[in-house]
Amino acid sequence: MKFSIDPRLQKDCFVLGRSTFCHVLLMNNAAVPWFILVPETDALEIYDLSTAQQTDLWAEVRKIAEFVRSEYPVDKLNVAAIGNIVAQLHVHVVGRRHDDYCWPDVVWGRPAPEQYAESVALELRAKLASHVQGFVRART
Amino acid sequence: MKFSIDPRLQKDCFVLGRSTFCHVLLMNNAAVPWFILVPETDALEIYDLSTAQQTDLWAEVRKIAEFVRSEYPVDKLNVAAIGNIVAQLHVHVVGRRHDDYCWPDVVWGRPAPEQYAESVALELRAKLASHVQGFVRART
Repeated sequence: MKFSIDPRLQKDCFVLGRSTFCHVLLMNNAAVPWFILVPETDALEIYDLSTAQQTDLWAEVRKIAEFVRSEYPVDKLNVAAIGNIVAQLHVHVVGRRHDDYCWPDVVWGRPAPEQYAESVALELRAKLASHVQGFVRART
Repeated sequence: MKFSIDPRLQKDCFVLGRSTFCHVLLMNNAAVPWFILVPETDALEIYDLSTAQQTDLWAEVRKIAEFVRSEYPVDKLNVAAIGNIVAQLHVHVVGRRHDDYCWPDVVWGRPAPEQYAESVALELRAKLASHVQGFVRART
């Protein structure tokens, strides 16, 4: 199987690179640090992954969550596997602040109030590569 | 430390019992199967738990997710740690259907369209006790 990231995710996000099991995307919403991990699988639910794959997935989610907490002023992490709109399995990691644009509501279903300049996304990609063990940046 | 479940969660949910690490709650929203796991910890983020505790938490979330998939007609599982309103660490496991009351939107922030009769919650508690390994029902 040739794996490809769902077109809607590609449209809404920058594809930054990959960790061992997951592609790492940045939601194009500059108001909150919002990363999406897309494991390279055709399973649609976490619980259809093997136990070993689930362990890998949560370990990679943890690395991105720790990156978010170390790099941003974060009051709360929101970590979620939803998939109601994009069926391809993906996990959201969102760093929330008490003064962000939709606190305390969830970010899903809200339009992004501001987008990234591409240069900012590229800087973030470089930062992930130097701070997150096992992260390999996408070529583009 | 004497652990107690957050008052808002107690108000919104039935406390069904506990798994090894987590209390298992049923959100009082009869329109979707919606369980909440509350690990017995004062950590507010998953990533402040020890690695062993994180493994236990995800294993218990998995058991509840598998219960939901086996007992309900579910098109998609939504699994999320949010905590913007109730800070106490908790993980949502929600079984969604394409024809449920707020598909494809997320359930958070939407009022429950219908509540459970207490007898139904008690039946569910008994079903968890017989179907989910390690689940011990709450005394009430």
